[in-house]
Amino acid sequence: MQLYEQPHYRLNILTNEWVLVSPQRTKRPWQGKSEKAVVAPQKPHDLSCYLCPGNVRASGATNPEYTEPYSFVNDYAALLPDVPNEIFKEGLTQAKSESGICKVVCFSPDHSLTLPLMKLEDIEKVIALWQKEYDELGKLPNINHVLIFENKGELMGCSNPHPHGQIWAQQSIPTEVLKKNNAFASYWDQHQKTILSDYISQEIEAGERIVVQNNHFVALVPYWAVWPYEIMIVPLEPLAHISQLDDAQRNSFAQIIKEVTTLYDNLFETSFPYSAGINQTPTDGKDHPEWHFHMSFYPPLLRSATVKKFMVGYEMFANPQRDITAEQAADILRKLPRTHFTKA
Amino acid sequence: MQLYEQPHYRLNILTNEWVLVSPQRTKRPWQGKSEKAVVAPQKPHDLSCYLCPGNVRASGATNPEYTEPYSFVNDYAALLPDVPNEIFKEGLTQAKSESGICKVVCFSPDHSLTLPLMKLEDIEKVIALWQKEYDELGKLPNINHVLIFENKGELMGCSNPHPHGQIWAQQSIPTEVLKKNNAFASYWDQHQKTILSDYISQEIEAGERIVVQNNHFVALVPYWAVWPYEIMIVPLEPLAHISQLDDAQRNSFAQIIKEVTTLYDNLFETSFPYSAGINQTPTDGKDHPEWHFHMSFYPPLLRSATVKKFMVGYEMFANPQRDITAEQAADILRKLPRTHFTKA
Ligand SMILES: O=P(O)(O)O[C@H]1O[C@H](CO)[C@@H](O)[C@H](O)[C@H]1O
Ligand SMILES: O=P(O)(O)O[C@H]1O[C@H](CO)[C@@H](O)[C@H](O)[C@H]1O
Repeated sequence: MQLYEQPHYRLNILTNEWVLVSPQRTKRPWQGKSEKAVVAPQKPHDLSCYLCPGNVRASGATNPEYTEPYSFVNDYAALLPDVPNEIFKEGLTQAKSESGICKVVCFSPDHSLTLPLMKLEDIEKVIALWQKEYDELGKLPNINHVLIFENKGELMGCSNPHPHGQIWAQQSIPTEVLKKNNAFASYWDQHQKTILSDYISQEIEAGERIVVQNNHFVALVPYWAVWPYEIMIVPLEPLAHISQLDDAQRNSFAQIIKEVTTLYDNLFETSFPYSAGINQTPTDGKDHPEWHFHMSFYPPLLRSATVKKFMVGYEMFANPQRDITAEQAADILRKLPRTHFTKA
Repeated sequence: MQLYEQPHYRLNILTNEWVLVSPQRTKRPWQGKSEKAVVAPQKPHDLSCYLCPGNVRASGATNPEYTEPYSFVNDYAALLPDVPNEIFKEGLTQAKSESGICKVVCFSPDHSLTLPLMKLEDIEKVIALWQKEYDELGKLPNINHVLIFENKGELMGCSNPHPHGQIWAQQSIPTEVLKKNNAFASYWDQHQKTILSDYISQEIEAGERIVVQNNHFVALVPYWAVWPYEIMIVPLEPLAHISQLDDAQRNSFAQIIKEVTTLYDNLFETSFPYSAGINQTPTDGKDHPEWHFHMSFYPPLLRSATVKKFMVGYEMFANPQRDITAEQAADILRKLPRTHFTKA
């Protein structure tokens, strides 16, 4: 299509925001920043790591000798429980207190691993812990939203290479989730179906943005992807949150996470940095038939293991902009070997 | 105030989005990424620079021997003129063509300079060129929005250290600008004043978030600042765009830009990276009494010249989060020496 070969805008139907696509732009020369290629740490246990089993953390607490995925309350949490409720409004300034809980989830006792290098059954255990946390945190009285995410790689602000993710559970429903909430609800009201059910049906039929699919999940580059190799993993059934996954679905979820992160590592033969997040229904006690959970990966790399896409001036003051199309990205990812490059 | 010492949310009245503030959080240890401290290049002319006067660019074009601020059409533009108008909608996928013009603005022929190191009268010349570009581009038939911005430093994706900024002029009004448009218009409808007039009056009275002020401009850390040392420069008069600045106002604008960028360099005694953008009224031919232009600086550094704030997992999937309060940032900036550290 002519339209896709020239600068154009695409609509993100989940946030109702547009992204500018400039397919002609990858030709420009690069005299800018090169990152050092990210090499995964090699030792299975690192004495200086705050997250390895048995080590003492910066706060003075000692990690147990855990052998399975392990979670604990973040010693330097951005959110704290029992913050007294306060609301402030004075002229054009407005604030409100916020309480919550931040946890760290160690994926494995082995310091040298990452999700694509973990065994399938061990990824399933991570998902089982996420399910338990989502469930337990979500049931707490003042917790209306639970975000499970992973910042992988120092390019993505990860302050420790031990395989781990985070959970921030809180009182308010955050901005990005509210946007999705609105889009989900208005579609549900009109169609009595989740917008993501209809979207993935359309994508599966079209095929061109699909990266991997299995019995219960599909992974695709969304039509409105912002990051060069962004991927969204969506369950085929309209599940509102991960605790609804049964054993077979959890196995499929682990499988597709392993596949997607393996393709990522294989793309530039590096330990591929990204932020991943699972957007799920708010835990506000209300019924949310409109919600369809999904896990998104936002990886910064663009041209190689060392050159990333910067979301800066134009992107900050106008709107996101990308250089290759979603179709090109999906095509490149889909054609990569399925075996991790370190094991091939 | 108790509220400000614990985790809380603040409302951005320009976008109607919230930011999470966690003042207690700067205590956490940092084992993550360190950037190399940014040192400004020393040579006034660099033979390998695409932007120096007289040099040949990657495209093959030769720069004139310019002696004043100089602009030209970007050789690798994200936006192109004369893109045929097309609209595409198929089920849940929606796109539209976009035409526009991307320009590069060299601030000075001298490769070794940055805005804080330039003479006041030379910054005035940069502003005069911005005014001319905003005016001329904005009058073109298919251009409804003009964004003037600078990505400074390789941390902010700047691919060339020569002092320069960019202008992206385009058909559509981008997402971030539409959000401001809405907030501006609804306030104007109710009060027949710009929301920024009332906001800066309130801030000037309170004082605690003001960084610098002169005859025609104020620079402050907005109440809802996202980036650690974010600053917004606002004209005291409700001007909709920079072309309305007279000579005295242009002089004040140059002065406050020089002051703000000098404070920034002095903060960590480094050439301080940032993205800066001027949000102005759309050039869609409509009357926009609600618009009040402003120049914002989004700098990534948090703790030192080498440790930045990462807007990653939580920030991408939930909402922006900051560690020090706007009041603390303003206080730190305000107390810095006013003379550039390299000249003190
Ligand atoms: O055109 P430049 O300066 O090479 O590119 C820089 O600014 C652009 C506009 O903010 C971004 O899209 C790019 O990612 C960034 O590297
Ligand atoms: O808590 P961490 O992993 O040290 O911190 C990282 O993730 C957080 C949540 O996305 C961000 O706020 C921090 O900027 C980032 O460095």
